[in-house]
Amino acid sequence: MTAVDFASFVERLAQVSGDVILPFFRSAIGAEDKSRGGVFDPVTEADRGAEAAMRRLIGQTFPAHGVIGEEYGVDRPDAEYVWVLDPIDGTKSFISGMPTWGTLIGLMHNGRPVYGMMAQPFTRERFTGDGKRARLRTLAVSRGDAPPSDWTTRALRTRPCASIAEATLSTTHPALIRDPADRAAFHRVEAQARLSRYGGDCYGYCALAAGFIDVVIETNLKPHDVVALVPIVEGAGGIMTTWEGDEASKGGRIVAAGDRRVYEEARALLTSV
Amino acid sequence: MTAVDFASFVERLAQVSGDVILPFFRSAIGAEDKSRGGVFDPVTEADRGAEAAMRRLIGQTFPAHGVIGEEYGVDRPDAEYVWVLDPIDGTKSFISGMPTWGTLIGLMHNGRPVYGMMAQPFTRERFTGDGKRARLRTLAVSRGDAPPSDWTTRALRTRPCASIAEATLSTTHPALIRDPADRAAFHRVEAQARLSRYGGDCYGYCALAAGFIDVVIETNLKPHDVVALVPIVEGAGGIMTTWEGDEASKGGRIVAAGDRRVYEEARALLTSV
Repeated sequence: MTAVDFASFVERLAQVSGDVILPFFRSAIGAEDKSRGGVFDPVTEADRGAEAAMRRLIGQTFPAHGVIGEEYGVDRPDAEYVWVLDPIDGTKSFISGMPTWGTLIGLMHNGRPVYGMMAQPFTRERFTGDGKRARLRTLAVSRGDAPPSDWTTRALRTRPCASIAEATLSTTHPALIRDPADRAAFHRVEAQARLSRYGGDCYGYCALAAGFIDVVIETNLKPHDVVALVPIVEGAGGIMTTWEGDEASKGGRIVAAGDRRVYEEARALLTSV
Repeated sequence: MTAVDFASFVERLAQVSGDVILPFFRSAIGAEDKSRGGVFDPVTEADRGAEAAMRRLIGQTFPAHGVIGEEYGVDRPDAEYVWVLDPIDGTKSFISGMPTWGTLIGLMHNGRPVYGMMAQPFTRERFTGDGKRARLRTLAVSRGDAPPSDWTTRALRTRPCASIAEATLSTTHPALIRDPADRAAFHRVEAQARLSRYGGDCYGYCALAAGFIDVVIETNLKPHDVVALVPIVEGAGGIMTTWEGDEASKGGRIVAAGDRRVYEEARALLTSV
């Protein structure tokens, strides 16, 4: 069974997850949930509900597979196939009413990421990759006021970029780079970049795969933040590793780039002392 | 004729503008446009095309009205009614493939903003306000893979927030606050905020109107960046002025807040020396 066989199953995971999450997006924050005697927290409710729905579908369909999820922990991490789930990557965007969050669904085979999806149910976008190819499915944009009519698919490809001086750089928020030396390293790259953009979360990596951003730099990432994104970035022709050049899937300090020249230059700047 | 009469006309403006812009969003950047012998610049093409389309519709429908646009300058600025247009607010987001940009359509009557819309054709959202009420129209989110079926409308209302310490703060990018003293003032507020979010552009003000962000602080804004947003923010119960407390519609250093307590506290921090 190859990763390709999982593609339609991952679409189903995105569907059940999106169905749980969407009613909570932009629902009232701080409203009391009397049934629990506490404060209603839509992002936690959405996160948990979506992960539970995905775990249920995985358990019914592939009972031998492992699952690692942000909300409900680790089941069978040594299985041949392990799903790595983050129902809402970008919870701060979510609670701020912004659309730059997404559902990350990654699949590892013998410990290596082989398939990934970033699904954005609000904008109706699904970025997928298997390390060799990457694509974006969207609900077709229609003209005028008519509702969109159907899903369309396009291939994703990173763009060439010769140097940091020509690059668009993205990070979610510089304050998330908590280590002062790491933050200084980030600003060394930022100072040379043509354009710096904040607020990306998982969207930044997908915009890189689509050829609109050249380098993403972040730190303190967990496996569930990255496993789904590696096959998308690599499938689009990009590179995604730790700052040291090691495999990205364990998380930590991550650099992704669409062009190897920018990747090498960014790594040199990040790891110079 | 009251501002309310313009509501359906503004929907038509959003429609013709979105029809021009959408094909350029995430189209190839840097592709050569041989007919012009130069580099193809999608955001400039989209900006100009959309403003021209809106100006054409305004000229046909209300020939006596004035128009101020980012791309094509000023026509009849002393007319009783003047339209203030920014086809793509957030061009850096647009060229980076991110959805946090929008079309700003403002209407001034005798020099004061009376109606505004922020239309996001990609996410199919239209935020409108007339200073007394504000609403959001979206293409209804459907369950599963089915395309959305119809537009739905909800009222917008800012949320209560007692102090900066409880507030979510938004700005587009701190580097856009170019004056060092202004940037220091921004960071005085940010240091006290519960949560700081970057990357908003016009979306930040609309998330404030919807009750998910409490304060937006920016500088160096032009009238076309703000005129459309004032009736939305005020219509949702918020406040939007210059840092000095003057009318926002001329642009400059702007503070918007959903609750007067946060507004007063932010202004005090911004203008203290």
